[in-house]
Amino acid sequence: MSESIPLPEFPAGHVWLCGAGPGDAGLLTLHAVNALKQADVIVHDALVGADILAMGHPAAERLYVGKRGGQSATQAQISQILVDLAQTGKRVLRLKGGDPFMFGRGGEEVQVLAAANIPWRIIPGVTAGIGGLAMAGIPVTHRDVNQAVIFATGHDPVTDWAAIARAAPVIVIYMGLKRIGVIAQTLIAAGRSADTPVAIVTDASLPTQTILQSTLGRITDDLATHPMSPPAVICIGGTVDILEHSNG
Amino acid sequence: MSESIPLPEFPAGHVWLCGAGPGDAGLLTLHAVNALKQADVIVHDALVGADILAMGHPAAERLYVGKRGGQSATQAQISQILVDLAQTGKRVLRLKGGDPFMFGRGGEEVQVLAAANIPWRIIPGVTAGIGGLAMAGIPVTHRDVNQAVIFATGHDPVTDWAAIARAAPVIVIYMGLKRIGVIAQTLIAAGRSADTPVAIVTDASLPTQTILQSTLGRITDDLATHPMSPPAVICIGGTVDILEHSNG
Repeated sequence: MSESIPLPEFPAGHVWLCGAGPGDAGLLTLHAVNALKQADVIVHDALVGADILAMGHPAAERLYVGKRGGQSATQAQISQILVDLAQTGKRVLRLKGGDPFMFGRGGEEVQVLAAANIPWRIIPGVTAGIGGLAMAGIPVTHRDVNQAVIFATGHDPVTDWAAIARAAPVIVIYMGLKRIGVIAQTLIAAGRSADTPVAIVTDASLPTQTILQSTLGRITDDLATHPMSPPAVICIGGTVDILEHSNG
Repeated sequence: MSESIPLPEFPAGHVWLCGAGPGDAGLLTLHAVNALKQADVIVHDALVGADILAMGHPAAERLYVGKRGGQSATQAQISQILVDLAQTGKRVLRLKGGDPFMFGRGGEEVQVLAAANIPWRIIPGVTAGIGGLAMAGIPVTHRDVNQAVIFATGHDPVTDWAAIARAAPVIVIYMGLKRIGVIAQTLIAAGRSADTPVAIVTDASLPTQTILQSTLGRITDDLATHPMSPPAVICIGGTVDILEHSNG
């Protein structure tokens, strides 16, 4: 590397859990590139693009364990794969879209590794809910709008959206495309204005990025006329329309 | 660069607002390194370390506009500096600790640039409240604990901590060291258990990183016997003590 900073050696038999960021390979960290170059095996999910995987050592094995399409490995199976590979003495890179600890289930994998006495390291990444939105021109905080922002997953039926509605002016939702209509109605019932701006960004940070701007009151209708596909990140609140949006 | 991905050319007269991450230079993104190598002037704050500034072009001007110690520039002055520099045709890199849009006032600077017709770009960074805590072994989400996490600044007196207490199992506070005692009491009064784990991490991700683990009920006393200095990020909730902490 032309960068002069010291970066760690990847010891055999270790597992590094690493965030690959929202999609744009330029949002990889230097630690992530350093890990890619040394890994013997790269265990990745569907959100890690081909250009990022190509940055690994040519001889490294690429192992797909994504949850999209066809047969998918369970979380327990993925954790066991990491343990098994490390125990054969490989340098195991667990590469995840976004950040491993931000709705990335990295903690569960670390617990299994620790229980098996496998040495591990976390390499944080840029999360889509901040960096992906930023690349689309949407700040999650703005001085005149909010001193708090809440990040939630959209797929958990027990999440208390009424409490969330009252706690933070800006709400960012991961994995929320299917349930955004229900969530929007719950937020309105809890007191948020139907005119509250909403933006849905798919493929954030990538050339295929799309943005739908709407409101809590209109989002169900707007999605019906402009269908979108995951991965999507949703931002709700007054920061959505402060800056000019950039598309890709 | 040895990385083969295409990275953008920095046009003269443009301003790029870029996050430098929580401190560890290895958490710079490839976009950030690309920006550092091309910038004519680097306008930075106190949280950007010397090793990161050293990655800029040797001939680039380094301009400190931090808010710590001695005379500090106002936000309006900083924004005007960016406009003035861009209008002289320089490639202006505005380099901030963490992420520009996560309590980084990047949106305010973009608004001034846009009003002056200066072309701008946002380069997101790893925010301390996620990546800094991760480097200390603290996940902000964990499947059994929370499907929502709230990030707030500690210095704003109008923040509704009682609502925050009810909205998310995990609370991350930026710039909260001075007021954490008051905040902890407010959270307890709003129904959070005095036994709720609290971790304060200073200099997150750096060799000088320190961690204080405590609880909402004990944090004031613990800070009195173990004084800490900013920059600090605070995590409150059940994810704090799930993994073994790493210190640097």
